[in-house]
Amino acid sequence: MRIAIYAGSFDPMTRGHEDLMVRSLEFVDRLIVGVATNSSKQPLFSIDERVEMIRMAMGDQPRIAVKSFGGLLVDFARQEGAHLLIRGLRAVSDFEYEYQMALMNRHLSTKLETVFMVPSLDTTYISASLVREIARFGGDVTSLVHPVVASALRAKLPPK
Amino acid sequence: MRIAIYAGSFDPMTRGHEDLMVRSLEFVDRLIVGVATNSSKQPLFSIDERVEMIRMAMGDQPRIAVKSFGGLLVDFARQEGAHLLIRGLRAVSDFEYEYQMALMNRHLSTKLETVFMVPSLDTTYISASLVREIARFGGDVTSLVHPVVASALRAKLPPK
Amino acid sequence: MRIAIYAGSFDPMTRGHEDLMVRSLEFVDRLIVGVATNSSKQPLFSIDERVEMIRMAMGDQPRIAVKSFGGLLVDFARQEGAHLLIRGLRAVSDFEYEYQMALMNRHLSTKLETVFMVPSLDTTYISASLVREIARFGGDVTSLVHPVVASALRAKLPPK
Amino acid sequence: MRIAIYAGSFDPMTRGHEDLMVRSLEFVDRLIVGVATNSSKQPLFSIDERVEMIRMAMGDQPRIAVKSFGGLLVDFARQEGAHLLIRGLRAVSDFEYEYQMALMNRHLSTKLETVFMVPSLDTTYISASLVREIARFGGDVTSLVHPVVASALRAKLPPK
Amino acid sequence: MRIAIYAGSFDPMTRGHEDLMVRSLEFVDRLIVGVATNSSKQPLFSIDERVEMIRMAMGDQPRIAVKSFGGLLVDFARQEGAHLLIRGLRAVSDFEYEYQMALMNRHLSTKLETVFMVPSLDTTYISASLVREIARFGGDVTSLVHPVVASALRAKLPPK
Amino acid sequence: MRIAIYAGSFDPMTRGHEDLMVRSLEFVDRLIVGVATNSSKQPLFSIDERVEMIRMAMGDQPRIAVKSFGGLLVDFARQEGAHLLIRGLRAVSDFEYEYQMALMNRHLSTKLETVFMVPSLDTTYISASLVREIARFGGDVTSLVHPVVASALRAKLPPK
Repeated sequence: MRIAIYAGSFDPMTRGHEDLMVRSLEFVDRLIVGVATNSSKQPLFSIDERVEMIRMAMGDQPRIAVKSFGGLLVDFARQEGAHLLIRGLRAVSDFEYEYQMALMNRHLSTKLETVFMVPSLDTTYISASLVREIARFGGDVTSLVHPVVASALRAKLPPK
Repeated sequence: MRIAIYAGSFDPMTRGHEDLMVRSLEFVDRLIVGVATNSSKQPLFSIDERVEMIRMAMGDQPRIAVKSFGGLLVDFARQEGAHLLIRGLRAVSDFEYEYQMALMNRHLSTKLETVFMVPSLDTTYISASLVREIARFGGDVTSLVHPVVASALRAKLPPK
Repeated sequence: MRIAIYAGSFDPMTRGHEDLMVRSLEFVDRLIVGVATNSSKQPLFSIDERVEMIRMAMGDQPRIAVKSFGGLLVDFARQEGAHLLIRGLRAVSDFEYEYQMALMNRHLSTKLETVFMVPSLDTTYISASLVREIARFGGDVTSLVHPVVASALRAKLPPK
Repeated sequence: MRIAIYAGSFDPMTRGHEDLMVRSLEFVDRLIVGVATNSSKQPLFSIDERVEMIRMAMGDQPRIAVKSFGGLLVDFARQEGAHLLIRGLRAVSDFEYEYQMALMNRHLSTKLETVFMVPSLDTTYISASLVREIARFGGDVTSLVHPVVASALRAKLPPK
Repeated sequence: MRIAIYAGSFDPMTRGHEDLMVRSLEFVDRLIVGVATNSSKQPLFSIDERVEMIRMAMGDQPRIAVKSFGGLLVDFARQEGAHLLIRGLRAVSDFEYEYQMALMNRHLSTKLETVFMVPSLDTTYISASLVREIARFGGDVTSLVHPVVASALRAKLPPK
Repeated sequence: MRIAIYAGSFDPMTRGHEDLMVRSLEFVDRLIVGVATNSSKQPLFSIDERVEMIRMAMGDQPRIAVKSFGGLLVDFARQEGAHLLIRGLRAVSDFEYEYQMALMNRHLSTKLETVFMVPSLDTTYISASLVREIARFGGDVTSLVHPVVASALRAKLPPK
């Protein structure tokens, strides 16, 4: 069974993240969405909120599991029996960082392969940080995130 | 069964190409190496020579098939029953062209997903055009290509 | 009156080119589409065919004029009384070349300003060279170019 | 009347910012310089100081207005009746972020077009953050910023 | 005598840094490693610890001196009689920032030339920030840093 | 004695090339300008013309020698006793190709180090191909190339 990991901070999950999760099911048997706890930045949503939102939004996908993790990604992958890391690529600046990480992860665990995917064109310009900024100023995020996330954003950042 | 296509001109196949072929077997069941005939450039090796070299070099991999193709890659994929395209990414300039192609191929055939892989670090600087140039001037290519290819290069470009 | 030039080889004009022409009318009074004759490459369509296709496709835009030009772009701009060059930016590799050209054109004619625009998202992956390649192998280009261009492509590159 | 917005944090305004403001007057009737209040970073100059410095430096340009704004740029543009955003492009990394923002702003307000300009060559290497760093260590900034800004920097960061 | 400066925060020095130091001795007579004190970020190692580690690791290189410095790099260079800055280039994003800095430093001191070098391939993916992160989570850094640094990391970040 | 090679096709030499040659003398004892004969493209100037123009233009620099070479650059360097390659970097796209070449040349000859320099800002936008194009259409190249080259261009490409 091919198990892959799609890791990130998902603060919050966007339509771009969802798109990649579903696409990856085309060639993996099981996808583990790994929500990273150890970000140095102060997140908008707690780790539990982020895990819960993804679970609710992706609930109809039996082959997707959502878990939080701390520590190194290579250790999480080993623990989950995953040999594949899925990453999204939208821009050159993404690419450079991702390329360095792919080489470092391969150095740390030779069994771990990274594959990159291109998100759907209409999610290209969506990032979690832009979504947070738009929500903070009362902009409309309904086409950028899942309804579950849109509700959570409204509750967390009520219009003034 | 997950069938993937790894297309290129392979004029000639390098250690970087080989590396990617073997890595992709980690998550595909069958890899079809598609050698493109319709390049506008005058190749060093004929289409038959290129197909034959890859077959000889990869002969111990029963899950890899080598075929030539003309026309659009999406048509070749459809014909072979493949839903996945494998591409190597080494540099930002690779990325931009590959990104455009991935979006165009998805436009032409929504069923066709492109995944990108990072070649082994020690093949990063190898390209078929550099290999041809080095061989042409009598440089040593033995660590850059398979022995089968090195022999073919010596036969095609004898030292003056 | 603000006159701008949008120059290129338009071999053939794509939906991306059209999109930029119409968008530029938002801030220029008159747009001169300059079809370059002096390309070193052998074009698919003659200069007259290219000019004619753009005229037919953009016929309902009275503020757009289509002209062919040889020689330096700065000379063409001077002759047309234009102080603005319009360019499309899709990718980093576009940007670098365009940036060098903008600086050189400013050096050659200090009165000439270059402004860059972002094409519509759904035309991002369209280029004239990809359109030619798809048409050549009998692929469907109807959503990539204007009907006038699609007909011309079918006439020029009949299915075998 | 064509109204455009040139937004930023201008902490402080550099010669590169000035250059772009003046250049943009070539094709816009009125330029509104929007000084953003909602930056998360602690600025060196207060919002009022930044607005005042630009007003003093650009005082001889009757078609330039300087205003502070909070919230989303698209809302500020709507309120000011502007349909054009002016942005400077110096480097590939600028380009990627700006490209994403241009697409997002178009998504949020289809009437809002972004145009990019290339600053004068001799301002290419100037950024507000480098200016602050040089001033902080007593370096000479007189050729990097307007005399009004140079005085303000000396007052804010006196030599130790 | 050709004196060059290789400046950075070295928090901590990696195998990539070491590689560049040794390579530069090929064309400089004396290399001054300048450890920057004025970083805004909270470093893992104190300035004295960083200087000391580099001195211990590079102790067998009589032509390398290690010094801390505050203030502008151009002032440090002037004070040390250096006319050359050595920088490592690994990625496009490195390049853009470095390019801007090289132009700014030349503006601040016309006598100061910047030369860029390519680190050894097997250190390409190593960065000080990745080393800190791996050490923090108990990963193995022995092939990424000098034994002196590896010991210091174990002492500073003991396994939990 | 530190001998370096600055190789290229120099068809023709531009002010950017000159700038780099002079700058490199700051840290090399002797610079050998290597004019490549084996370009596949049809040059505007013959190899002898190109060598002669550089010799005339750089005649007052006793530490610069100009030679033509065929074959691999690493072989030319070995033959000249050079351990350093000098390359100019202007843009990200330059960087990627140069980076690959630097790694390949180090693979072919471990003794050969590549160092990159940044040309003077006012030569950033000059390339030999743009110079040829401007001269071909009767544009003014006097500030882009040495007077010796400007004369040669006028003789080779007389105004029609």
